[in-house]
Amino acid sequence: MSRDVTSDILKRLRSIEGHVGGIARMVESDQYCVDILNQIVAVQRALDKVNSRVLDRHLHTCATTAIRGDDPDERERVIGEILNVFKRAGKR
Amino acid sequence: MSRDVTSDILKRLRSIEGHVGGIARMVESDQYCVDILNQIVAVQRALDKVNSRVLDRHLHTCATTAIRGDDPDERERVIGEILNVFKRAGKR
Amino acid sequence: MSRDVTSDILKRLRSIEGHVGGIARMVESDQYCVDILNQIVAVQRALDKVNSRVLDRHLHTCATTAIRGDDPDERERVIGEILNVFKRAGKR
Amino acid sequence: MSRDVTSDILKRLRSIEGHVGGIARMVESDQYCVDILNQIVAVQRALDKVNSRVLDRHLHTCATTAIRGDDPDERERVIGEILNVFKRAGKR
Repeated sequence: MSRDVTSDILKRLRSIEGHVGGIARMVESDQYCVDILNQIVAVQRALDKVNSRVLDRHLHTCATTAIRGDDPDERERVIGEILNVFKRAGKR
Repeated sequence: MSRDVTSDILKRLRSIEGHVGGIARMVESDQYCVDILNQIVAVQRALDKVNSRVLDRHLHTCATTAIRGDDPDERERVIGEILNVFKRAGKR
Repeated sequence: MSRDVTSDILKRLRSIEGHVGGIARMVESDQYCVDILNQIVAVQRALDKVNSRVLDRHLHTCATTAIRGDDPDERERVIGEILNVFKRAGKR
Repeated sequence: MSRDVTSDILKRLRSIEGHVGGIARMVESDQYCVDILNQIVAVQRALDKVNSRVLDRHLHTCATTAIRGDDPDERERVIGEILNVFKRAGKR
């Protein structure tokens, strides 16, 4: 991945790590369940954004290289991976 | 929340925090995008489980108390909150 | 369910039925895959809205009655059902 | 799309159309909300499968052609569309 994209994704992951720690403290100090639920959904949304950035990178780099390449098995493998990411993300 | 439930939820959140840190290290060491995507989905699944434990607690405690109580506005408020949690979780 | 809510939900379901038929015609006439995908997502969103209306009704009627009632097993059953709806909707 | 894939997708869409009609009849005959909710989730899962078949086709045909082609704008457009499908499916 390019430096800029990597550092953007890292910044997001570090912030998510802190957010999860914050939710743990909310649980420890016995805060209102619904507030905790809303914070968890906020973390999941932030992870969705990381997901979509990593996928963006993947499609522009490895996937493009493989699909433009001459090895049909490799093309098939890469397309299968993209479909799996899609299914797994939906089937949570 | 009861002690057992609180400590189960905390253990899960601490493990998720560590998992997110691990994904950041995968990004730093430039690992394969699809492996990173799969780890992010694993974290989101783990958060779904925390979500469902917190909601379980909420329905058994605050929500039950409010719905069994005599204040119709309070009942309405609590039901509205549950619906909102449901919508927000879906609309990510 | 009250008449108004029932007829609102029915109207939505009839419209969704027609929408799905329309997507089938798009497939038959070999339209662009991405347009088809977007229409399917639109149908799923419309179903999310029906879901949330049915759940709203359920929480205001059967669930409230059971939770306010004197049978602890019945209360437990109803809360378990709500949690299951939540999990199933997420785990698609 | 190839004939086989088209006819598999059409069969699925026709069955989903009938399923939605069945849910409308459940609502009309005032059946238990939770049973209705579970049927709606079943329809959404069936739509997820159609989605993933249409995306599979798309990646193997139009998307592969564009990504292997010589027009960088067209490549960019197709990758952007895949990312959008992914985001929209998640952001319901």
